[in-house]
Amino acid sequence: MTQKPLYIDNLQYTNISPAHFDEMAVAGLSAVHVTICYHENFRQTVENMIIWNRWVEAHPDRLMLGRTGDDVRQAHAIGKTAIFYGFQNCAPIEDDIGLIEIVHQLGARFMQLSYNNQSLLATGCYEDEDPGITRFGKQAIAEMNRVGLVIDMSHSAHRSTVEAIDISSRPISITHANPSWWHPARRNKPDEVIAALTKAGGMLGFSVYPHHLAGGSDCTLDSFCEMIAEAAERYGARHLGIGTDLCQDQPDSVVEWMRNGRWSRSTDFGEGSADNPGFPRQPDWFSSIRDFPNMVTGLQKVGFFQDEIAGIMGGNWLRFYDQNFGPVGPS
Amino acid sequence: MTQKPLYIDNLQYTNISPAHFDEMAVAGLSAVHVTICYHENFRQTVENMIIWNRWVEAHPDRLMLGRTGDDVRQAHAIGKTAIFYGFQNCAPIEDDIGLIEIVHQLGARFMQLSYNNQSLLATGCYEDEDPGITRFGKQAIAEMNRVGLVIDMSHSAHRSTVEAIDISSRPISITHANPSWWHPARRNKPDEVIAALTKAGGMLGFSVYPHHLAGGSDCTLDSFCEMIAEAAERYGARHLGIGTDLCQDQPDSVVEWMRNGRWSRSTDFGEGSADNPGFPRQPDWFSSIRDFPNMVTGLQKVGFFQDEIAGIMGGNWLRFYDQNFGPVGPS
Repeated sequence: MTQKPLYIDNLQYTNISPAHFDEMAVAGLSAVHVTICYHENFRQTVENMIIWNRWVEAHPDRLMLGRTGDDVRQAHAIGKTAIFYGFQNCAPIEDDIGLIEIVHQLGARFMQLSYNNQSLLATGCYEDEDPGITRFGKQAIAEMNRVGLVIDMSHSAHRSTVEAIDISSRPISITHANPSWWHPARRNKPDEVIAALTKAGGMLGFSVYPHHLAGGSDCTLDSFCEMIAEAAERYGARHLGIGTDLCQDQPDSVVEWMRNGRWSRSTDFGEGSADNPGFPRQPDWFSSIRDFPNMVTGLQKVGFFQDEIAGIMGGNWLRFYDQNFGPVGPS
Repeated sequence: MTQKPLYIDNLQYTNISPAHFDEMAVAGLSAVHVTICYHENFRQTVENMIIWNRWVEAHPDRLMLGRTGDDVRQAHAIGKTAIFYGFQNCAPIEDDIGLIEIVHQLGARFMQLSYNNQSLLATGCYEDEDPGITRFGKQAIAEMNRVGLVIDMSHSAHRSTVEAIDISSRPISITHANPSWWHPARRNKPDEVIAALTKAGGMLGFSVYPHHLAGGSDCTLDSFCEMIAEAAERYGARHLGIGTDLCQDQPDSVVEWMRNGRWSRSTDFGEGSADNPGFPRQPDWFSSIRDFPNMVTGLQKVGFFQDEIAGIMGGNWLRFYDQNFGPVGPS
């Protein structure tokens, strides 16, 4: 008898609707890490938590709140999706280190130390200069380590990322990005950054956002999975997972807001351009949440073993969740 | 007939009390730039504005709100002190460029781009690295220039300061610091920074905070005024004024809060030390607000002309206020 596979998508920012919860069930996703903040301050982030809490409450057949690895196992056993909260910026903690424990108590499990710009903690990948982790950033990392709020450096600049890996006493994550040796986009990561991340026990989640893909919207599943195979050779398959960065059903106004927040009076096009300012078209093999299992076929084709595929599709994130979502236990 | 001199102290953070308003009258201060924010966010800063607005309302014999250079002239004519609001950090604008115009409308006239740490706009002088003005910082400078909110770099790091001078289309300020060639404290400024500031039409306000003084609390008035004479030779007397940084009657808990805000779980002693964590003792020639005119004697002794003294004691700040506290007028 074959056991049902356990899948985790470790980054989505979809325009929430019950149809998506059905798609999560169709895809067999046992856990989704959902972004609930980009530029929102603490109070606004709490408002977003309330909105998500109510969605989960209203759909008990499909969803449950996720706080631990065991919640994923439970969701898997009963056919639900565990929803984990994460922040793509440190805006929710404002200038208050005390808010780190508070947001963890409220369910947050991942926090980026910066989005695209300089933050109070670290530097984003769109700044010209990257001075590394700030004074407050060093203190924040220690506090995140203490409570079990995972550091995510997906949008951060390279020096800041390597310093975060070094300063953190626990493994960190890049939840949604690809290697720049495959596609040299600003948001993708050079070999030495991924090597440092994974050597320290950290996780890389591969993104399916077209600006991060070789060939963009026309990227093939074969190319994507060949890249994963190469990454497995370089860094070890157990440090790899998926974080699709899927923004399903979001209007283009949302990507404009992501890029410009409240900080700009002119328009920043980020990974887009004046000619192409909106969300890019998804590749045909991952056009929506329900397509998640398609990646299994691609991974088989490039020669991964069954247990490696199980790891990349969910098991590796689950192990990482077990080890990093709470205080460090007794050794 | 001698005209009554016009004095401006362009930086105080006293523990407000009506006795201080009497001292301002005794000192003959026609204007004081009061700090109303270090770490406060927008809402908290508005609360501080309400507190100050009510002090001014309750003491119409002593105080008036200051918004323009003409308000200083009016205060001078009728024997009151015009109170100007300023921020020692960019915390009140949070991550929202739109708040720059809002705080100006509410009366703010100076804003530091950073306090001691990295901010969203610039770098503070206690960071190890100084990457200069951030993406948001460049936009914020343009907006501050547009509305007439003056940039203050007193606590910022040197590269950030020089970049702010270059990027700003209007003169900027260092409201409270001294040259490091006189006293090489972390908060004092090297020759090249002051030269760039004043060459671009900016103003330096000399601080009487003991950590910024050669000899500390035992600094003599002669030494202080000899330093001003040297600065006048180097940079021109018309770019020099006073910003005492006086923290009269503040408890030591306040300086601990200034240094640590909400960002630290350990204690940062800033310019102090574990042995000397509190506010330092003021020099005897400037122990309180009422001592402000003592500086005239010292400036006379080092050979300044009467009109130069009038400039340093208030006239230079008044000219700067006239030119920089509103939108740029028709040329």
